[in-house]
Amino acid sequence: MNEGVTVQMNTDPQVVDMALGHPSPGLLPLDLMRTAAEHRFDQADPLILQYGHEQGGIGFRTELSRFLERRTGGEVSPESLMVTGGVSQSIALLCSLYTRPGDEVVVEDPTYFLSLRIFADFGLKVTSLAGDSEGLDPEVLEEYLQTRNSAVPLRFLYTIPVFQNPTGKTLSTKRRQRIIELAEKYELMILADEAYQLLGYDVTPPPPMASSASSKVISLGSFSKILGPGLRLGWLQAESEHIKKLVSCGMLDSGGGLNPFTSSIVRSMLQSGSMDRHLDRLIDVYRQRMNVLSRSIWTELPESAEFVHPGGGYFLWVKLPDEVDTHSLKKAARSYKVNFISGSQTSPRGLLQQYLRLSISYNDEVRLQLGVQRLAETLKGATENL
Amino acid sequence: MNEGVTVQMNTDPQVVDMALGHPSPGLLPLDLMRTAAEHRFDQADPLILQYGHEQGGIGFRTELSRFLERRTGGEVSPESLMVTGGVSQSIALLCSLYTRPGDEVVVEDPTYFLSLRIFADFGLKVTSLAGDSEGLDPEVLEEYLQTRNSAVPLRFLYTIPVFQNPTGKTLSTKRRQRIIELAEKYELMILADEAYQLLGYDVTPPPPMASSASSKVISLGSFSKILGPGLRLGWLQAESEHIKKLVSCGMLDSGGGLNPFTSSIVRSMLQSGSMDRHLDRLIDVYRQRMNVLSRSIWTELPESAEFVHPGGGYFLWVKLPDEVDTHSLKKAARSYKVNFISGSQTSPRGLLQQYLRLSISYNDEVRLQLGVQRLAETLKGATENL
Repeated sequence: MNEGVTVQMNTDPQVVDMALGHPSPGLLPLDLMRTAAEHRFDQADPLILQYGHEQGGIGFRTELSRFLERRTGGEVSPESLMVTGGVSQSIALLCSLYTRPGDEVVVEDPTYFLSLRIFADFGLKVTSLAGDSEGLDPEVLEEYLQTRNSAVPLRFLYTIPVFQNPTGKTLSTKRRQRIIELAEKYELMILADEAYQLLGYDVTPPPPMASSASSKVISLGSFSKILGPGLRLGWLQAESEHIKKLVSCGMLDSGGGLNPFTSSIVRSMLQSGSMDRHLDRLIDVYRQRMNVLSRSIWTELPESAEFVHPGGGYFLWVKLPDEVDTHSLKKAARSYKVNFISGSQTSPRGLLQQYLRLSISYNDEVRLQLGVQRLAETLKGATENL
Repeated sequence: MNEGVTVQMNTDPQVVDMALGHPSPGLLPLDLMRTAAEHRFDQADPLILQYGHEQGGIGFRTELSRFLERRTGGEVSPESLMVTGGVSQSIALLCSLYTRPGDEVVVEDPTYFLSLRIFADFGLKVTSLAGDSEGLDPEVLEEYLQTRNSAVPLRFLYTIPVFQNPTGKTLSTKRRQRIIELAEKYELMILADEAYQLLGYDVTPPPPMASSASSKVISLGSFSKILGPGLRLGWLQAESEHIKKLVSCGMLDSGGGLNPFTSSIVRSMLQSGSMDRHLDRLIDVYRQRMNVLSRSIWTELPESAEFVHPGGGYFLWVKLPDEVDTHSLKKAARSYKVNFISGSQTSPRGLLQQYLRLSISYNDEVRLQLGVQRLAETLKGATENL
């Protein structure tokens, strides 16, 4: 979720940019990575520089599976994991192997807007389905599956089932089960983007959807949100038929595993427990930031601003009165030196113009408070002009 | 060129495996990488863990451009470079953005056989053109371009113009110019896989084809052959229209640059000069190995075995008498504990059965001598059975 590189590069440092999905530089654990790299180099194994196993090294996958089991409560075997270059690269790889141009992908509305760019690059037709207050609605999905034009192959349901981007919502176990049943019935694959899975503040969310052991689910995970996006290191979890297909593709057969060197260093972090300690710290920081953000909205924004306090992840989703268009508000916000993602940016159909998404990943508590104050001023100015 | 991961994993260590395109573990410079990592961590810049610029960091690209200019003699600006995850990932990325299933790709026969697997994954139709003693023949290419069925879009000419895999041949400057003229005339893009560009033993080969500044050429480079395949770090060089298209694709827009962390470490190696010193050492080792391999073939194999001593790279290409089928020979070679790549493995049309490819990358001089002795025994056994 590199949604703001360009924004970040060009932005005035005075702007409180709550659009950014980057971690604050202070949350990037350079010292822990340094210690892990030293540990790894101390092993004196030159094979960390060699072509790696296509699925990822078994040592790394074993440590990763233990880490995921203790952090998610799901069953995650090393055999069900494949090392990737992060969620975006995973989506691109899956599109290259499982789709052809003109095929269809169903997504939630709203969704992670940059995933749509990847689908577009592969010539895929995107259909978006409106969610409700609990997220993706299995009934809406079923109705669509029953009535759609079956001449166009439907390949994927792309969903963000946990601490969703942008809404922060987590899909219930019951809905997950029902959606997987539908995927089985209609021969549809679920790409579950679970980038925020491990960032539950207090309550552990349902385990990765792929822990259901349905052959219709591929879960996509990443170290971008819990360690560092610059590592370009992630994983996917799936049943063996998919792992087999993926590891035997031409790109991997030719280039070998996707990140042998970096994964060998992160393996040391997983082994030593420093990854867990860092994640605990991150969760504390994000919990606190989200509390501050929520309180600031309660205090500063008009009562008409509605939101549900998320239980984890990066994002808070605010509903403003229907007459507010957050696309215009975003423009007006420039002179108040505050920024956010407008609802229509997250809606494949360009709807949801009364919503906005605020991220806690980049700004600390003081800046978030300031940001909400400026947002309140922006809103006041805009309302006066209505 | 991970052609042998599976072979390597399963192989009897007693086998002299000259099929492998891996560097020997002893040639993987773990200590230099360690020193470079320490230098990079000493800079205390947490942004090496942050989302990176889509094109790759300007600091890294600047060092890389200087390195390439001093090692290739070509003009290589930082603006013309984009950081990649290696040649295989570059080919896959280019296929995803420049082709649609059913489109055509022209390749040399013989060629790097695993590239064909990537093209197949993207549903591309591969046409192979026979080369001559100097490699890809512009006249054969022109004749094909004039007479082909133009209803099928022809997207790429995929060529390995320098120390070719498998033949070791380097395309002359004159042929390169003519091929680029044809690409311009017929609106065809050249993907120049230059993985072995920097491994000239004594003479610097012609510079990367993209140094021609033709908008029809994309040169693909990699640290796999000169530093470590496990880094999954490479680059491509192209005119700005291609760089713009690539850096604005969905995958990069979402995930950011392809290898910020690893490239920051390699940047330190480029800065300190340790990359150059390592490359000088590699070239010395490979020159010596190739000399030993050549001499052994002269000494051990029958006079009917023909080859041209390559001026660089990993591979030596041997022509055996027409009645020898190296596919069968490869099977017979198992009991002599020696292995190689048969000509038909490298030929998209399954031709060239009297050729074989020997690699110097994995085995040292003593092992290469032993390998050729065993090959001679295999050949003797096979000839007696004819």
